[in-house]
Amino acid sequence: MWDTLWLDVHLATGDDRLITSGDGYGCIHDGAVGIHDGAICWVGSRADLPGIPDGLARKVEHGHGGWLTPGLIDAHTHVVFAGDRSQEFAERLNGASYEDIARKGGGILSTVKATRAASEQQLLQVSLKRVERMIQEGTTSLEIKSGYGLTLADEFKQLRVARAIGKTLPVRVHTTFLGAHAVPPEYSGRADDYVTFLADELLPRLHEENLVDSVDAFCETIAFSPTQTEFLFETARKLGLPVRIHSEQLSLSGGTALAARYGGLSADHLEYADENAVMSMAHHGTVAMLLPGAFYFIREKQLPPVDLLRKHNVSIGLATDCNPGTSPVLGLTSVMNMGCTLFRLTPEESFRAVTSVAARALGIEHETGMLREGLRADMTLWDVTGPHELSYWVGGIRPVRRIYGGLG
Amino acid sequence: MWDTLWLDVHLATGDDRLITSGDGYGCIHDGAVGIHDGAICWVGSRADLPGIPDGLARKVEHGHGGWLTPGLIDAHTHVVFAGDRSQEFAERLNGASYEDIARKGGGILSTVKATRAASEQQLLQVSLKRVERMIQEGTTSLEIKSGYGLTLADEFKQLRVARAIGKTLPVRVHTTFLGAHAVPPEYSGRADDYVTFLADELLPRLHEENLVDSVDAFCETIAFSPTQTEFLFETARKLGLPVRIHSEQLSLSGGTALAARYGGLSADHLEYADENAVMSMAHHGTVAMLLPGAFYFIREKQLPPVDLLRKHNVSIGLATDCNPGTSPVLGLTSVMNMGCTLFRLTPEESFRAVTSVAARALGIEHETGMLREGLRADMTLWDVTGPHELSYWVGGIRPVRRIYGGLG
Ligand SMILES: [Zn+2]
Ligand SMILES: [Zn+2]
Repeated sequence: MWDTLWLDVHLATGDDRLITSGDGYGCIHDGAVGIHDGAICWVGSRADLPGIPDGLARKVEHGHGGWLTPGLIDAHTHVVFAGDRSQEFAERLNGASYEDIARKGGGILSTVKATRAASEQQLLQVSLKRVERMIQEGTTSLEIKSGYGLTLADEFKQLRVARAIGKTLPVRVHTTFLGAHAVPPEYSGRADDYVTFLADELLPRLHEENLVDSVDAFCETIAFSPTQTEFLFETARKLGLPVRIHSEQLSLSGGTALAARYGGLSADHLEYADENAVMSMAHHGTVAMLLPGAFYFIREKQLPPVDLLRKHNVSIGLATDCNPGTSPVLGLTSVMNMGCTLFRLTPEESFRAVTSVAARALGIEHETGMLREGLRADMTLWDVTGPHELSYWVGGIRPVRRIYGGLG
Repeated sequence: MWDTLWLDVHLATGDDRLITSGDGYGCIHDGAVGIHDGAICWVGSRADLPGIPDGLARKVEHGHGGWLTPGLIDAHTHVVFAGDRSQEFAERLNGASYEDIARKGGGILSTVKATRAASEQQLLQVSLKRVERMIQEGTTSLEIKSGYGLTLADEFKQLRVARAIGKTLPVRVHTTFLGAHAVPPEYSGRADDYVTFLADELLPRLHEENLVDSVDAFCETIAFSPTQTEFLFETARKLGLPVRIHSEQLSLSGGTALAARYGGLSADHLEYADENAVMSMAHHGTVAMLLPGAFYFIREKQLPPVDLLRKHNVSIGLATDCNPGTSPVLGLTSVMNMGCTLFRLTPEESFRAVTSVAARALGIEHETGMLREGLRADMTLWDVTGPHELSYWVGGIRPVRRIYGGLG
């Protein structure tokens, strides 16, 4: 006997076995989903159910004709931070560029200062509030990066807060070590020394405490070089940790190809990526994680190479990049819309970008990301006429129900 | 004895008597608001309350340190429509321009077809659902245009539905007659005859039934000329109805100056408006209603002349332009963010644009739009550290409480 049976729903399964050229969502009209022990145990057409509803499950849930989709997955966030960057938001509105602000010592470093000053409890409290909002918008799995601490104690603090969020709220958290986010003031002019500290001391210590699910670096002229990034990736490889990268956002630096060579789960931003970078991603199965929120906020003109990604069959993901400076974005449906409107993705691509592809970018595709037997029952129910509406509207679209591990 | 007293709140009053160069919101920290008979009867600092809370009001409400603002006002919407334009959304993602689609007989006319085919009850039902979502995002007053009927019976139907929305949901509805939205197929090639029908027959009949609060026209090369628009505005003037206009969205047509000469409440879109157009608005007190949702969706490059509007002290409003083809936007905070990010408004300008300025654009500034004694108690409570957060975040921001005419 199943725990729960969902009826009166249409399904956008996102299951690649059901996706066809005519249906990029893997739809099942008038579908049914069985749940047992927090996992999906049956997915199909209601007509094919192996019995009468009351005989199949202890509880029958009714979707009132809405659409059930996999829970949304936000595979790139910096949501654990303290402080307020709204002043910088106003400065940017008065013409200062992101790079101007970074060079003036504002930008990331002002958030580092505030995050260091916050106690673990304070940091948890302000971060939980943001994640609660993400959850209301449909997110059921969430990547969270460190990178606003940049000392041993403060990176520990940030990653413990990330883990605590996953224990406090109904959301699956994947932690990413991003010590290589910015050179902290105390290492000013000594970036190589800082990277050595990250690779030889900080990352191994954090890994020992099981605080790191993957390793990231901000590879950019205003941040870390490919050589410095590779030094860190070598440690990650030795520790058996997967890598990902912030690359080619403001210029072509070669970070994408580097991360791909290290089997990177994802390369993120990619506005300036060229065909070589795209081909490396294709070769190594690295996901292209596009971040239209940052593109929109900093009014970037250079579009990521979507046609090249399609040509080489690189999977395209989308995420909020939630951060206080360049992407104060909490809602994944807003990102789906920006993916379509700004980057010309199709609504179907946007849908997969925040479900199955995002799961792959976090290495959790065997747990979640589709409505498929055996995966966890992370699902969102939407009062819409079809899954395309998730990409279509701006504002006003939230799940009417959210099921996490079968509950909710 | 007041009905209600709000405490433990900060106030962003939007009251122009409190707005200074250092505070564009008219803030009162640790404020209090008294409500009686649905109206605001006291606004000020809690310390200045003329008595103890329990002695002043029958009910004391606690804002838990959040920010209370005027209810948001959406002064330009086409939210009453039937049909689904998501296919066109996909076509635009494949490169078709808004004008291409209009010339192919898609665009507005496909919505006209669906809206004509819907019964009044069906039209009400689908529209209520959208307005409920707008309300959840903070909207307490709403302009609704006709213009998808374009026959006597169907324009009646659309405007009756608009009125019914204001009776069914807790939202103030202002109706606008937009018969001059598109030339309907049965008048193809006879636009002048259609305008004559609008001016001589349809508008007077609708006005007789008290269905029209203002008159609008789509003045553009692909729609109606200034001469045709003026013919309609003459009837509006005779009937004592205020006018507004869709102008200079795709080209400089002269519509803005025309509407201003007729004392227009607002001129809307304005991407191609020049200094003469701006000076006419300044001279006649016409509000510049900017619509960044449409700008964003059709990926317009031409920015509206914000600096000229500031130079000539023209009040800048913002609205969703909610419509199925070029601006499927339901949330006003999304529009506030787009006003800042895309049009470089300050957060303070965005705030006033959807409160006091929007009220003026609807001619309801003596009813709502600020937290001020004598106005209706239309208010929204936000769990934020300041009103700038309403413009800052994308997604995740909704009022935690919404008070309409003192209730809620
Ligand atoms: Zn990032
Ligand atoms: Zn419009």
